[in-house]
Amino acid sequence: LSARELAIGVDIGGTKIGAGTVNSNGRVLDRLVIPMPQDGAASALAAICGAVAELRRRAEAPVLAVGAGAAGAVEQPAGIIRAAPNNAYRELRLGDALAAAVDLPVVVENDANVAAVGEARFGAGAGHTHSITITVGTGVGGGIVIDGQLYRGSSGLGGEVGHIAVSPKDGPLCGCGAHGCLETMASGSALTRAARRAAALDPGGTMAMLAGGIAGVGGETATGAARRGDAVALGLFDDVGFWLGVGIASLVNVVDPQIVILAGGVGGSAADLLLEPTTASFQRHLYARDERAHPPIVAARLGADSGLIGAAALVLP
Amino acid sequence: LSARELAIGVDIGGTKIGAGTVNSNGRVLDRLVIPMPQDGAASALAAICGAVAELRRRAEAPVLAVGAGAAGAVEQPAGIIRAAPNNAYRELRLGDALAAAVDLPVVVENDANVAAVGEARFGAGAGHTHSITITVGTGVGGGIVIDGQLYRGSSGLGGEVGHIAVSPKDGPLCGCGAHGCLETMASGSALTRAARRAAALDPGGTMAMLAGGIAGVGGETATGAARRGDAVALGLFDDVGFWLGVGIASLVNVVDPQIVILAGGVGGSAADLLLEPTTASFQRHLYARDERAHPPIVAARLGADSGLIGAAALVLP
Repeated sequence: LSARELAIGVDIGGTKIGAGTVNSNGRVLDRLVIPMPQDGAASALAAICGAVAELRRRAEAPVLAVGAGAAGAVEQPAGIIRAAPNNAYRELRLGDALAAAVDLPVVVENDANVAAVGEARFGAGAGHTHSITITVGTGVGGGIVIDGQLYRGSSGLGGEVGHIAVSPKDGPLCGCGAHGCLETMASGSALTRAARRAAALDPGGTMAMLAGGIAGVGGETATGAARRGDAVALGLFDDVGFWLGVGIASLVNVVDPQIVILAGGVGGSAADLLLEPTTASFQRHLYARDERAHPPIVAARLGADSGLIGAAALVLP
Repeated sequence: LSARELAIGVDIGGTKIGAGTVNSNGRVLDRLVIPMPQDGAASALAAICGAVAELRRRAEAPVLAVGAGAAGAVEQPAGIIRAAPNNAYRELRLGDALAAAVDLPVVVENDANVAAVGEARFGAGAGHTHSITITVGTGVGGGIVIDGQLYRGSSGLGGEVGHIAVSPKDGPLCGCGAHGCLETMASGSALTRAARRAAALDPGGTMAMLAGGIAGVGGETATGAARRGDAVALGLFDDVGFWLGVGIASLVNVVDPQIVILAGGVGGSAADLLLEPTTASFQRHLYARDERAHPPIVAARLGADSGLIGAAALVLP
């Protein structure tokens, strides 16, 4: 495989579209970032197709294929992105539109699967055949790579790690209708809720001070306070890490990967605070933990480019 | 594939060894059942090798390979069975011994994986590419079949569904050292413990009467009482089904199979009592349950022959 073989990756967000030309070493050679039109699917499709066509014109070698990732459920093989909370469209028939516009093979996947493929191939999972990537942001998502391939399950719904039930009797109601999903206990939203509760009990504490009052307290306040050593904020990360470790242990018991990768706005960016409590809880809950090598839990490596590079990795040979 | 292609399957239990000659339709053509010697590994190996050699002599077509299943962790690829509670040996180097004795390819797997392969190919999962079999007996085990192949994970420890953490804060201590594993909430042992507690609170009730006193109450008492419509016993199955459904929902969210199969001394034999509460809880906890086809939860079909047939299925082409 020559490093001159190119793919275009597209990272579709609620407010902007990132697109990049990526070579087979996972390097971004060219990129475009444009605002996501907010007036429906037709404008969104036109903007995405335009960006891809422009990158292709500028490419110095043939582009083999296009990969795209977006929040929300993706219907395969047509590549239709269903509504997600931050999207300005109800459904985006991206696969067909892109294929028609650029006459190249196109693969569309949800953002957590894209992150998993990118990290497995060009990020923290490089060199491993079996990895799980968990994206901890507003919610909790994930993707599983087995024998170097994204695991989709029998109907494309595999790898929904955010809805592993870790506290089904006492946990909060999840957006999915069940109680105590991992997402309700260990997401950025869970961290924000817990931070507000803690700040309300301690209105003179570090978090309330940092946020200029209880109302402004959120996940970033907790992160800032924890990095200053605030015991209350550190306790919040211990809780999130406990539940994340529980969920990861269940996943590892079932999937048996070589490595687990934390990604996303909280999982990747606050890995310095999360990795230690998460790993401690994981090791406590892992089956046969005395007799096996524990797969390490590590921070994602692709950072803000995970969407671009991961989307391209979906289609790079 | 001709139905005259044969494999020998061996089901290694604590007290007896079952071995059978199985054709490529999953039919048992010949069988031997002998006591498991209780004086250590050498005698056990001699008995197993003798049974296989005898079946091979009697076979009316060439035997292609030998598959064997046993409780306990199995070290691959050597096929070494590590100690399990009911075994009369600490380790059984079965793979090498059998291969040397009969000069055939040999595969050794743990009993839950054997059951999963048998059910997937010749039992309730036939016709599906992706299935999960959960064995509910004294403990809870399981096996995952993906694209028609047993999923072993990166190190052979995949599919340990009994140690999914469903109640890690409040659940009882599991033999593995963690709290609230599925096995502590939804096994035959959990049923027995709950039945004893319930009978002690109600010494004149159906379960205590059926067992001739509280001390004799166990899982079978609960099964008998529930089949007579006893509300207390039915409530115990509701609880076991609740937790089993939670665990299955987490599994299905991750693995996305087409079918889930309940097997084992409780899962298979008391399926009439378990399937309804398990399915109700499963559907309540499944992610995206309004938008997807729910994989059905069904009872195993191979019954007492699952060990034999499943072991042969491991090696039948």
